[in-house]
Amino acid sequence: MDLERQAKYFAHLIESKDLQTLKQEVESMNGADVAELLESFDERDTLLIFRMMPKDLSIDVFAYMTPYQRRLLITSMTDEELQSILNDLYFDDMIDLLEEMPASFVNKVLAQTPLKERKLINEFLMYPEDSAGSIMTTEYVDLKPEWTVGQALEYIKQIGMTKETVYTCYVKNKYQKLLGFVSLRQLVTEDPKAKIEDIMVDDVISVETLDDQEEVADKFNKYGYLALPVVDQEHRLIGIITVDDIMDVMEEETTEDFHRMAAIEPSKKDYMEETVWSLAKNRLPWLLILMISATLTSGIINRYNWIIQDFIILTSFIPMLSDTGGNTGSQSSTVVIRALATGDIKISDIWKVVFKEGKVGLIAGTALGLVNFIRLYFLVKEGFLISLLVSLTILCVVELSKVMGAFLPIVVKKLGFDPALMASSFISTVIDSCALIIYFGLANLILY
Amino acid sequence: MDLERQAKYFAHLIESKDLQTLKQEVESMNGADVAELLESFDERDTLLIFRMMPKDLSIDVFAYMTPYQRRLLITSMTDEELQSILNDLYFDDMIDLLEEMPASFVNKVLAQTPLKERKLINEFLMYPEDSAGSIMTTEYVDLKPEWTVGQALEYIKQIGMTKETVYTCYVKNKYQKLLGFVSLRQLVTEDPKAKIEDIMVDDVISVETLDDQEEVADKFNKYGYLALPVVDQEHRLIGIITVDDIMDVMEEETTEDFHRMAAIEPSKKDYMEETVWSLAKNRLPWLLILMISATLTSGIINRYNWIIQDFIILTSFIPMLSDTGGNTGSQSSTVVIRALATGDIKISDIWKVVFKEGKVGLIAGTALGLVNFIRLYFLVKEGFLISLLVSLTILCVVELSKVMGAFLPIVVKKLGFDPALMASSFISTVIDSCALIIYFGLANLILY
Repeated sequence: MDLERQAKYFAHLIESKDLQTLKQEVESMNGADVAELLESFDERDTLLIFRMMPKDLSIDVFAYMTPYQRRLLITSMTDEELQSILNDLYFDDMIDLLEEMPASFVNKVLAQTPLKERKLINEFLMYPEDSAGSIMTTEYVDLKPEWTVGQALEYIKQIGMTKETVYTCYVKNKYQKLLGFVSLRQLVTEDPKAKIEDIMVDDVISVETLDDQEEVADKFNKYGYLALPVVDQEHRLIGIITVDDIMDVMEEETTEDFHRMAAIEPSKKDYMEETVWSLAKNRLPWLLILMISATLTSGIINRYNWIIQDFIILTSFIPMLSDTGGNTGSQSSTVVIRALATGDIKISDIWKVVFKEGKVGLIAGTALGLVNFIRLYFLVKEGFLISLLVSLTILCVVELSKVMGAFLPIVVKKLGFDPALMASSFISTVIDSCALIIYFGLANLILY
Repeated sequence: MDLERQAKYFAHLIESKDLQTLKQEVESMNGADVAELLESFDERDTLLIFRMMPKDLSIDVFAYMTPYQRRLLITSMTDEELQSILNDLYFDDMIDLLEEMPASFVNKVLAQTPLKERKLINEFLMYPEDSAGSIMTTEYVDLKPEWTVGQALEYIKQIGMTKETVYTCYVKNKYQKLLGFVSLRQLVTEDPKAKIEDIMVDDVISVETLDDQEEVADKFNKYGYLALPVVDQEHRLIGIITVDDIMDVMEEETTEDFHRMAAIEPSKKDYMEETVWSLAKNRLPWLLILMISATLTSGIINRYNWIIQDFIILTSFIPMLSDTGGNTGSQSSTVVIRALATGDIKISDIWKVVFKEGKVGLIAGTALGLVNFIRLYFLVKEGFLISLLVSLTILCVVELSKVMGAFLPIVVKKLGFDPALMASSFISTVIDSCALIIYFGLANLILY
């Protein structure tokens, strides 16, 4: 809310051309806040505000901007302004930026970059998207095993400000192999004469360049480190990944899970950036598949036409039965999918989980069935047999939904696919057909 | 997988009483891995393995264990063993532990704790659950503004190993007010003679003790810091929260969102720890509410009984129509709820979002309607009017679902509730009734 008021104040300052006050206001702010504030301005005003910031702040603001904002800003910048920003960004932020830009732009930037850095960029751009290599930075502190703590601290004093993190320092031998790590906490508390190789932790948890970023995030979650080293297949140290970058990855991966669970093809873009067509394209395939699967229900209903003709009242309970089945099933599948993602359930727990959900289904089904029976028989006065039929169907459908909602995601994971595919939309469609078969099957038994 | 094999190997070592090898194996492992491995052992074997670990490792393993594992282990420990672990845990880990334990146990621990620490624990236990106060630690490094960098480094060298983090140090005046912070990176790169008050950052981002942990997580996400200071209402420094604790909070909050979106009352416990009854209790209320709301559909169908009697075939399309509406609606609501959570959409964007989803609905609805028409008219040969009716209904229902799926979560957030309540289960139930009204309304127009 505060930011909204500030945005209005800034807009007013721009309108009344009081740029001196505007400059002072901007300079007193934090980079992340300025970036958020700029979202409410068009490219002309963004550029205006951007140009009046001191260099340090502008680099900071740029790093916090959304890809969309950056693209807008870059198109209106001069080449010199752009080059000067690129030179001052941390290496991984520059790579992120280049990955977002069209190829023509990337080539323009590469032409203006010194050869050594250019090769590095190229290498980075070649790592597959979402791999550890693509999110790492090469700006880490490397120490030699034979150095003393004092020498290491002197070295950090020289180069510390240009590195992404100095809090975890990595020890390499002359063949670039990763030997261990030392935390800055250790360095400042140890005797300055101690040798690095004597105090380093040599049991290093590392990731490989081609590891998926989700595995990397899991490792951060599990071990709680501030940084993890990235090595190649020969265990040579290539780069590091820091915890602030991995927090973005975690947010991205969670959004992907949410979307996939709602039967949407995940996309990297922010909602506000997506075009209407790309939104439709990510959603249509699953809607089509689910709609066509759902036509199975028409066939089932047509097969039992004769029952409906005798008892037309049965039609009126179909949506309630299918909703209740869908809701119970999606409860179980959501819980199981999430527990699989956080590692709380393992594939080998399948029978324990199915059995547990089965028991929950029995309790929930009995409760829902009873409430329904009371409503139908005593309040709506539907007659005993109809009330019994609907309530029994609820009990069976709830039990089945719970069991299937628990079983399907684990099986799908076991088969090597993403369990998120077995979320509410899919479960509801499967359960709909089963619910109808149970309903008419029981009707045939009870009503005739 | 690896861990499973190792667990079997350990079980074998225990069985064959080769405890010497077991001890060596355990000592070579990382604390987080041992904790995970112990999940497959019962309390007797867990205690056996736990007792053979060196002190440092056992503290580490204990901190990584799940609440359930800890409770099992504690019940079989002697009082001395327990006290010795408690003394060596970081303060916030001890608080976490005490919060999980029954009151009788907490009192026993408090009785054995020195007065000063006891008061501190009490204070912590009084902060509301999920508040910044409840997750903070008091083990931070505090510097005086008049110190030099050299003095500060000397101080850190003395006390650094007992603090939760030394990478961000906080500067307080004699009234405990927070003046600023200095990073250890700055301290090791600055001139040792520089004064702390001259180099500290005085524009500090902080949180208050009663702030919700979700707000705290948002601040970490936004600013990318490694730690944030917690102050009281007089801006006195009370504690700090570190990034590794906040990563657990983020996972917890995301799980809560997933569960709430599946119409489940969120709970703090891991799935495997929950009893069948508590699972049922968290799920039944919403199932009941949704089931009773869904009975509205029976009323609608009964009102249009006369149309069904004339065209009994209409019944067979009801489940497909309601599924398709539910699926499209839950796509939009999921995307919007997630975008609200990540800050990608703001409440003020409501009309932009509704309009955009409306356009997506038009594209998706037309596509689904067309596919459906082709299937019904040309393949199933349902007749022109029926095919037209069903396809038109799909178009209208998809459009309506998209708009409502976008609109409802934002409105609910505006009203101050959790937008996650407007997820698929709720949206499906609302859309079901609307879909039936559209279906029979159009039938009345087209078929008569």
